[in-house]
Amino acid sequence: MTPLLDNNTLDMNGLERLVEHVVAGGVHGIFILGTTGEAQSLSHGLRVEMIKQTSRLLRNRIPLLVGITDTSIVDSLILSQVAYEAGAEAVVSAPPYYFATGQPELAEFYEKLILQLELPIYLYNMPSHTKVAFAPETIKRIAENEKVIGFKDSSANGSYFQAVMYTMRDRKDFSIFVGPEEMMAEAVMMGASGGVNGGANMFPKLYVDLYNAANSKNIDEVRVLQSKVMQICSTIYSNGKYGSSYLKGLKCGLSVLGICDDFLAAPFNKFDIEHRERVECAIKELCL
Amino acid sequence: MTPLLDNNTLDMNGLERLVEHVVAGGVHGIFILGTTGEAQSLSHGLRVEMIKQTSRLLRNRIPLLVGITDTSIVDSLILSQVAYEAGAEAVVSAPPYYFATGQPELAEFYEKLILQLELPIYLYNMPSHTKVAFAPETIKRIAENEKVIGFKDSSANGSYFQAVMYTMRDRKDFSIFVGPEEMMAEAVMMGASGGVNGGANMFPKLYVDLYNAANSKNIDEVRVLQSKVMQICSTIYSNGKYGSSYLKGLKCGLSVLGICDDFLAAPFNKFDIEHRERVECAIKELCL
Amino acid sequence: MTPLLDNNTLDMNGLERLVEHVVAGGVHGIFILGTTGEAQSLSHGLRVEMIKQTSRLLRNRIPLLVGITDTSIVDSLILSQVAYEAGAEAVVSAPPYYFATGQPELAEFYEKLILQLELPIYLYNMPSHTKVAFAPETIKRIAENEKVIGFKDSSANGSYFQAVMYTMRDRKDFSIFVGPEEMMAEAVMMGASGGVNGGANMFPKLYVDLYNAANSKNIDEVRVLQSKVMQICSTIYSNGKYGSSYLKGLKCGLSVLGICDDFLAAPFNKFDIEHRERVECAIKELCL
Amino acid sequence: MTPLLDNNTLDMNGLERLVEHVVAGGVHGIFILGTTGEAQSLSHGLRVEMIKQTSRLLRNRIPLLVGITDTSIVDSLILSQVAYEAGAEAVVSAPPYYFATGQPELAEFYEKLILQLELPIYLYNMPSHTKVAFAPETIKRIAENEKVIGFKDSSANGSYFQAVMYTMRDRKDFSIFVGPEEMMAEAVMMGASGGVNGGANMFPKLYVDLYNAANSKNIDEVRVLQSKVMQICSTIYSNGKYGSSYLKGLKCGLSVLGICDDFLAAPFNKFDIEHRERVECAIKELCL
Repeated sequence: MTPLLDNNTLDMNGLERLVEHVVAGGVHGIFILGTTGEAQSLSHGLRVEMIKQTSRLLRNRIPLLVGITDTSIVDSLILSQVAYEAGAEAVVSAPPYYFATGQPELAEFYEKLILQLELPIYLYNMPSHTKVAFAPETIKRIAENEKVIGFKDSSANGSYFQAVMYTMRDRKDFSIFVGPEEMMAEAVMMGASGGVNGGANMFPKLYVDLYNAANSKNIDEVRVLQSKVMQICSTIYSNGKYGSSYLKGLKCGLSVLGICDDFLAAPFNKFDIEHRERVECAIKELCL
Repeated sequence: MTPLLDNNTLDMNGLERLVEHVVAGGVHGIFILGTTGEAQSLSHGLRVEMIKQTSRLLRNRIPLLVGITDTSIVDSLILSQVAYEAGAEAVVSAPPYYFATGQPELAEFYEKLILQLELPIYLYNMPSHTKVAFAPETIKRIAENEKVIGFKDSSANGSYFQAVMYTMRDRKDFSIFVGPEEMMAEAVMMGASGGVNGGANMFPKLYVDLYNAANSKNIDEVRVLQSKVMQICSTIYSNGKYGSSYLKGLKCGLSVLGICDDFLAAPFNKFDIEHRERVECAIKELCL
Repeated sequence: MTPLLDNNTLDMNGLERLVEHVVAGGVHGIFILGTTGEAQSLSHGLRVEMIKQTSRLLRNRIPLLVGITDTSIVDSLILSQVAYEAGAEAVVSAPPYYFATGQPELAEFYEKLILQLELPIYLYNMPSHTKVAFAPETIKRIAENEKVIGFKDSSANGSYFQAVMYTMRDRKDFSIFVGPEEMMAEAVMMGASGGVNGGANMFPKLYVDLYNAANSKNIDEVRVLQSKVMQICSTIYSNGKYGSSYLKGLKCGLSVLGICDDFLAAPFNKFDIEHRERVECAIKELCL
Repeated sequence: MTPLLDNNTLDMNGLERLVEHVVAGGVHGIFILGTTGEAQSLSHGLRVEMIKQTSRLLRNRIPLLVGITDTSIVDSLILSQVAYEAGAEAVVSAPPYYFATGQPELAEFYEKLILQLELPIYLYNMPSHTKVAFAPETIKRIAENEKVIGFKDSSANGSYFQAVMYTMRDRKDFSIFVGPEEMMAEAVMMGASGGVNGGANMFPKLYVDLYNAANSKNIDEVRVLQSKVMQICSTIYSNGKYGSSYLKGLKCGLSVLGICDDFLAAPFNKFDIEHRERVECAIKELCL
């Protein structure tokens, strides 16, 4: 997440606490400026600052992945250059999201982008927000360039996820991550590389433990921990009738936990007091 | 599947062979008149005949589940009465699919329907075809009636599936099945009751073995068998650019295996010779 | 509309009053068993009865058009035979609405259907309910058969409507109607044949007058009458947050006007007393 | 349109020719950085330059409207400040297009944005690209602020357009424009303020003439000119199976006419030689 004080100001103390919190929780890397990071709602200038500050605070303890998703290839490349200079390990890119492209145009877009990148890149599938999904064959085509080192799927489509894993089965060094935290354990049991899960902002250890249980094929432990994750999803993220309940709930949760401010960038707003109290209750009942 | 000779004639020899084939393969039940069964493309009269003939051929060796999905509640109830008289174990119903309903109307529709049913019922989630998905809370509300004994989800949405399982966690006798075969193994490992998978028409033993591996928490075996399922999906079901590639491929596969005719009810058509030859190759390469 | 007493019983007195009401209002034809007629929510048997009874009551005073839209080509043909025997002038058919087809399959479906029809046919575009829109070129292809005499577009897409008119400009005998009543006047001014507008169930003379004003290129009169139509749309059809507000409001309006019962077939329900009172007020304020 | 030499360079000679071309053609204003202007595919820096250069070339001969649509409210405000300083008459804004908002959030977003604007604003409805449509009541709410002086609708939904006109009927100073050129004439005949039509980049006089015919209620003249517009739409914009055929065709047309380069910003590409030749033929056949 991106801790904010207002639409154009980072909550610097919050960011520092958040970085320490997730590092202490044992996560294997940090991904900034994705959907959960509200990247598209931030000005280009603030995105640059977020990259620099996170890198400074993280001090290379774990890999930093930086979202460069933009509708402009030029602005995407500027962000990727900033990420490179800040010492990030890789960039992450979802398709341009104003104009929808066909699959050949999508592949060509990435081929052009990659040519000018200094860093390795993860493709990021987020069709509900970008309108277009990477066809498995398009991923394979783009990934013929070795700079393409992985894929994150936030479609929540389990059949699609299996199809991507099957299509990429011969690229042993290609990482495949799942976005929705409800699906992380099963994805890892089926052979995925891991999850990029928003809830790890609040409870990093829970998600690391769940990953470890799945990775070590301990199904009984998986089911116990999964139940905690589902409790989070069905309370903190499902509070009110907002399309943005997930973002509101997650940022409110971080605020309730004392980590950072719950300001949400326009066009969203933080929870009112009534919804916040429900998040407080939900966190208490979790007993984490 | 529904073996057909033309738009209004069952392939009776094919139906008999198909029933024997899947029973011999060890499946735990048969679901007719679902999406894979092309129910909506069949006349009301042919659906009635399909129920009677399948029941006659099956001779109660395993449970028979009958799809009664229709846009008319009256015609749905007629089909359910036929199913009851034919000795079916339960009916299966997806929402009315011409007019989209809100969740309260959806719950009320089922409350009315269930009142007049003789048989237990499974709810069937198929939002790509019916336009509306059952919200987890709507399932819970409808399932307050004990005649509602289970749920089949064909949305392919893994987050949604987990949310349904979590919402229904206290109804121990409520079965939850997954439609897309790509997701069956992981769903079962996470606690689902099983799969209702089209590929089992062709290769019932493979899907039973995969279910057994998942149910006995044998992840290594799951991954080996899953790879076969993904091979089927990426060849037999992905042959050409048709929206109906799955149905065309599956019915062609049954024909190639000598089980039944590959006639598809309008508005679809069977594969031409070129596509059929690809299915033949795909089946040979599977070595099942 | 289809006047109903319950899910499987016509309101026969209501149907008689409704037929007389619209004939007296000067409409140029009657279209039954379309979307506004709730055809898909009626049993096959009730649809047959609706055709016979309407034909009997109408006594050929004006043309009767009969919707035969169904997911089964066999059941569509049965309905068209009933319509033929009842003396209907033509049938009207929207695409199969469970499975979505591509354009070639859509054309082939209609080519097969038309071969077996006794009556001329209008194609009916309703993509929000059938998932697929007729591409203008597909209309042209299907209409190479002279039995295809017209097209009704309920997409509300003004660019598409113009494209269809332009594509069919050389078929002088091909009628093009618009469904949404908000668009009828402008469509007719641009050269369309007329409207098939639900509001004409309640206020047939208003819609006939608006058609006449548009057809005689009297733009000032059009704007005055259009304002009445928009008043109907923004009050009677926009009452509450239901997806089915249009159907609920229209049937409630007929009941308030003393024409027929306001029972809606499942999955919908009629308005409660509070919403009904708003319809009563709206009708009073219309001063028609 | 935005004449480009590459992804980050304006075609300055082309821009000058384009400005002179449309001014000479009699258009009543120029709208830059909309969808047809590929604004979202341009870097923030290039958008700033486009505003400054267009203003310089236009020399206030006709009003300049500037698109400030962005997912970041901060970057939108920076663009609007540039537009203000460059002497633009108003800004134009479509909703944030990565995260979809509900109607209350949409209204609040604009209330915040407007507070900080120096210039008047037009709302821009483009739901296919922004995922959310302005409900008519939301437009009314936002337009309570007098800085909101108009609305442009590119939804192509004729019922919706009429509903917006009806809802705003008491705000006589509020302009309502239609985007799709196929609908411009009918919209103006029904009372709309005019069109913002891409084709006017190529053939400004045709669109001005069509507007004048519609505005003077000359339906016969409208139908003659409309036929030319439909010829453009069905040839130049419908060349190949691209989702971006409209943009490719329009920019190719400008190049064929000798006005500017046909470079399209990523993720799109200009037409190949075969498609270009079809545009050349189409323009010849138009005889404009």
